[in-house]
Amino acid sequence: MPAPALHARLSRRLCGLESSPIREVLAVLERPGMISFAGGLPAAQTFPRIDLGRLARGCLQYGPSEGDPALRRRVASDLRRLGLTCTAEQVLILSGSQQGIDLVAKLFIDPDTPVAVESPTYLAALQVFRFFGARLETIETPARWARAAPAERPAFAYVIPTFQNPSGRCYGTDERRALAASCDAASVPLFEDDPYRELAYEACERTPVCAYLRRASWVYQGSFSKSFAPGLRLGFLAASPDLLPLLVRLKQAADLHSSRLSQQLVLRHLESRSAAQRLDAIVAIYRRKRDRFARVLERELAALAEWRVPAGGLFFWLRLRTAIDTRNLLAPALERGVAFMPGEFFHPDRAQGTGTLRLNFSHATADQAERGLAALAELIGRGAA
Amino acid sequence: MPAPALHARLSRRLCGLESSPIREVLAVLERPGMISFAGGLPAAQTFPRIDLGRLARGCLQYGPSEGDPALRRRVASDLRRLGLTCTAEQVLILSGSQQGIDLVAKLFIDPDTPVAVESPTYLAALQVFRFFGARLETIETPARWARAAPAERPAFAYVIPTFQNPSGRCYGTDERRALAASCDAASVPLFEDDPYRELAYEACERTPVCAYLRRASWVYQGSFSKSFAPGLRLGFLAASPDLLPLLVRLKQAADLHSSRLSQQLVLRHLESRSAAQRLDAIVAIYRRKRDRFARVLERELAALAEWRVPAGGLFFWLRLRTAIDTRNLLAPALERGVAFMPGEFFHPDRAQGTGTLRLNFSHATADQAERGLAALAELIGRGAA
Repeated sequence: MPAPALHARLSRRLCGLESSPIREVLAVLERPGMISFAGGLPAAQTFPRIDLGRLARGCLQYGPSEGDPALRRRVASDLRRLGLTCTAEQVLILSGSQQGIDLVAKLFIDPDTPVAVESPTYLAALQVFRFFGARLETIETPARWARAAPAERPAFAYVIPTFQNPSGRCYGTDERRALAASCDAASVPLFEDDPYRELAYEACERTPVCAYLRRASWVYQGSFSKSFAPGLRLGFLAASPDLLPLLVRLKQAADLHSSRLSQQLVLRHLESRSAAQRLDAIVAIYRRKRDRFARVLERELAALAEWRVPAGGLFFWLRLRTAIDTRNLLAPALERGVAFMPGEFFHPDRAQGTGTLRLNFSHATADQAERGLAALAELIGRGAA
Repeated sequence: MPAPALHARLSRRLCGLESSPIREVLAVLERPGMISFAGGLPAAQTFPRIDLGRLARGCLQYGPSEGDPALRRRVASDLRRLGLTCTAEQVLILSGSQQGIDLVAKLFIDPDTPVAVESPTYLAALQVFRFFGARLETIETPARWARAAPAERPAFAYVIPTFQNPSGRCYGTDERRALAASCDAASVPLFEDDPYRELAYEACERTPVCAYLRRASWVYQGSFSKSFAPGLRLGFLAASPDLLPLLVRLKQAADLHSSRLSQQLVLRHLESRSAAQRLDAIVAIYRRKRDRFARVLERELAALAEWRVPAGGLFFWLRLRTAIDTRNLLAPALERGVAFMPGEFFHPDRAQGTGTLRLNFSHATADQAERGLAALAELIGRGAA
């Protein structure tokens, strides 16, 4: 179990989650010659013949909750190149990074637990944290955590420092160092969500904030949905050694382990010689889409809104010059066949999001972007009049 | 939202889980000609070429939380043949049926919520229910629920009526009807877990208990792990119309949706002409393994324990003639290279499990079964002496 100071921060619910007795038994099953009547493993001879080219039949049987060892090693080695201190034992494979949010929420959040988030931030994280009863606080001046009484400090801080969803914002080096220093000073665990880091269209600082930590506990998570394929539902997290074993238990209770077929496909991709080249090609496609989108935005919406062209990620974040509630624009926009996300939903305090909206640029074709943004401009112009 | 009576039974935490704004938008995105800047869908042209024979590239993109429509339709039609009243809209595809346990626990369990379970029952369900704070009650005479005050009635009853893990027990028709009638009379939702139903080695009653319900809310779940392949992590649930929309939201918050590749493979399997034949072959393999295991058990352990030969499933459940704590046998057994599961862990009140153990017969080879059971017999004989 973790140190008492950390333990006091964990969800009261977590005390009820014992390590599975099966886990303890499984730990010795790898010994040569071991006869197991313990699990409920189907006989391998009953498995279907699936025509998956070079994929091993081994991915059809149950696997470890932590993830397949070769993939964990590969992820750990990639994370070390980003500056994280991380062994394969610190990696947990996820059924998409949304699952990491569920597991971390289960780990820390009781009713009324304070949790620090950015504003705006990823809306499905806000939903999950609220579901478990979190009291959401906005990260404004992290330095103040160190001055607050321990009980008032957030159970953890959730941040998306690189090409944030929805704002597209990317922290500079000083901001990264300052956030890490605050977490260290106040012993606030850092939960860093980093699904967009590979979609970088300009050179910019992308060192994980977790790499700057010296003492605080941490969870860093990433996704294979953006750079490989979302339909396979695969992501990963790495965590400080005090948290990882608890997260593994929660993972086991949630879905035993992630699809081994997806794990196999992702590992094969990561180890292929063409992976870097493929990423370059993806980034080039998205950069072109972003630039084209920016030109149409400029033409259609410059008089009505302001924005920064994002250096990475998948979104433009607009602030209207007249702060109207963009939720009211949604129905008429959908009627004209154009969908967008009102900014209010991304704010822990929704009123703070008035007059903002998020536009995804990666999905629509060039022609759709032209027609959709023209229609939006007309609606916004009318709403602001 | 569900009816007030049901609503009062749900977890307090659930009130915090709003429907995702993205869900509402996604609902209209299917309209022809719709331009979407709403989601964060990767561009399909960035997806890898995966050599999966006839599998559609369509399974690489994000998909619906409920599951792919064709698979939901297929599952619903299979469930109707079992006697359930069930449309495709009542089906939710799961990342393995362990996930259904997590979702139902999130749906119903607050600290100190009473939950009725069998004793013994599936240990990973006990773990999850305990984690969310459940007060576990043993299902002894379900009829008494109807007499209890509503506040004292369990939030739901969790049962594995067919080839139960760990006991191998299969409810008869009268027991199925009686349980359903109790749930109806007391308005106790029924959560029926049915992962082993296809592994039937003798003719026996397998109609879902949920098919006998007239009024009570219900969740019925099944797995593709036993009859297809566990490594793909795919299962499903069907639920009464009052519960399904809530479970979909919880699923979305947990992992967005299940691997579409796994869904595609399972659908292809279910629709293949050889599926029934393959199941017959699997059942024949397991029946042979069970019969061989039963013969060795009889020779080695008849003097030390009693059991019934299970009509289906993957386990023998032994009760020792001398009630020793089988947890104490585990370490010496592992030392000799034999693993089994002590029965204590499967009981909500562990003391009730003294002298019981679970033996899986599907994984060990014939030779391993011989050697393993001989070693166990020796240890048990010595422990009982």
